[in-house]
Amino acid sequence: MEIHTCLWNEVKAFDFGDADFSCLREALPDATIHRHDAETDFLAKAADADIVLTWDFPANWYPYCPKLHTVMTPAAGNDWVEPDPAGRVDLIHGAFHGALLSESLVSALLFMNHRMPALWHNFAERGWDRNLQARTRLLAEQTVIIIGMGSIGRICARQVRNLGAKVIGVSRSAEPVADDIASISVDQLYRVLPEADHVVLLLPGSTDTDRFMNPARLRACKPGAYLYNFGRGNALHSQDLVDCWDHLGGAFLDVADEEPLPRDSPLWQLDNIMITPHSSCVYDDYRRLFLEEVINRLKGD
Amino acid sequence: MEIHTCLWNEVKAFDFGDADFSCLREALPDATIHRHDAETDFLAKAADADIVLTWDFPANWYPYCPKLHTVMTPAAGNDWVEPDPAGRVDLIHGAFHGALLSESLVSALLFMNHRMPALWHNFAERGWDRNLQARTRLLAEQTVIIIGMGSIGRICARQVRNLGAKVIGVSRSAEPVADDIASISVDQLYRVLPEADHVVLLLPGSTDTDRFMNPARLRACKPGAYLYNFGRGNALHSQDLVDCWDHLGGAFLDVADEEPLPRDSPLWQLDNIMITPHSSCVYDDYRRLFLEEVINRLKGD
Repeated sequence: MEIHTCLWNEVKAFDFGDADFSCLREALPDATIHRHDAETDFLAKAADADIVLTWDFPANWYPYCPKLHTVMTPAAGNDWVEPDPAGRVDLIHGAFHGALLSESLVSALLFMNHRMPALWHNFAERGWDRNLQARTRLLAEQTVIIIGMGSIGRICARQVRNLGAKVIGVSRSAEPVADDIASISVDQLYRVLPEADHVVLLLPGSTDTDRFMNPARLRACKPGAYLYNFGRGNALHSQDLVDCWDHLGGAFLDVADEEPLPRDSPLWQLDNIMITPHSSCVYDDYRRLFLEEVINRLKGD
Repeated sequence: MEIHTCLWNEVKAFDFGDADFSCLREALPDATIHRHDAETDFLAKAADADIVLTWDFPANWYPYCPKLHTVMTPAAGNDWVEPDPAGRVDLIHGAFHGALLSESLVSALLFMNHRMPALWHNFAERGWDRNLQARTRLLAEQTVIIIGMGSIGRICARQVRNLGAKVIGVSRSAEPVADDIASISVDQLYRVLPEADHVVLLLPGSTDTDRFMNPARLRACKPGAYLYNFGRGNALHSQDLVDCWDHLGGAFLDVADEEPLPRDSPLWQLDNIMITPHSSCVYDDYRRLFLEEVINRLKGD
């Protein structure tokens, strides 16, 4: 079995080095692992590949790979890998992101609820203002809506619920998740938005989700609610957020409708906002978690 | 039954207004509640007080209160209320702080683990550096030591464990807390310090705890460990932290050995530090949680 890897990435946590593959070599002693650093390097050897582990896979690579039966990508979304037009090759997305993203999301919820932007300014000014959090309420006694209840959303819902908060999951199917997590369908969103102290977007990028959180939905939120986007940037247009900013309490955005967010975006200047560089899954554990998933699948083959 | 309150405070979240007492009036219709705004106001009426709810109670107030049988204070520590020298009056400290402090502590652990100081600078500079967290590991896979396992420490241990982290509680008694939380005694501290990624101080203020986290213990921590002080400032002297800073990864201090921390303290300038103004329990819920405790006790009487 020949496994070929195209797992270079400019984000260091996502850039698989030779040492990362030692767990794969150990777990699959009969496999040969070819690590590539560039497209041309891969395509020159692609004819022998049974399995490809990759960040990118454009449709025009498939003809180079007659023996290929499985493409596995760490990406949770289908942004960079195109399915086999001939329908012959299995395409497997990483399913390990929930543990990473949920920790980042809980961190963001507590960051905003705990008034960290104001506390940071107080710290930067060497201040000791003990009244910045006077109106802060326990997150454990608040309501968090999670919009987008795929596998990542369900793990996030579980983690937020573990903090004690009331959690309402919103999805197309409204499929139940757990006894202590409410599940509702998108057409009921307007009913619950006014109840939520925190509204989390975890939607995948697609034309369906474009501008999902439109001005009407933003204005249906409870006045002073906090908004979080940890899915894809297309679901929340920057200008809509700016237009509705007076209605909201703050926002924590890990993604933006244009990335990197342009330096002249009005978002940077909003009061009580935090923006991180699409880094909710940037953990050193990322590479190991993906390769553990690869091993589990290939050992099951 | 006459309940007298001396619950004014310059911290707004701790300053009990008339409306806060409506729950008390409703729950205890036979009690008379006298809310005082100043010491002279209270002492003029103290002769009739059966119960006093107070922030301060100097020993020389007791002779003014012949009928007094119970003093209840929201404070967790014995910093501001002196016990009755005659030993006649019960002194009850608030026991509700765990829910508040544990949320603040979890917020701080995730803040440091998630490299928020670096992410904040990146945000302030309108940057999009996705490599700031390249070495970040899931908190869920790390070890957290909690030094000081009183009622607050035990609730914090539970909450941190809920995030998935391995938790080691350190106390004089080493009394077991739960099957999934290790309990060790202080004399074993040197054995576990090198294992911990995060070291949390939750010690009460007393001469026993003064400079508990001394340079020898700071240097016994794992290189790059994060330190948190959410107990009392006397346990960690500023100069000791500065002297050992090269050994540590960062720190989040909610208390300091001098409060407010002086503007010329060298702590403000350390790289990868966050300092909050002794605000780990500053929540709007504070007053309600204390009065719920008062009601529970007095209804049980």
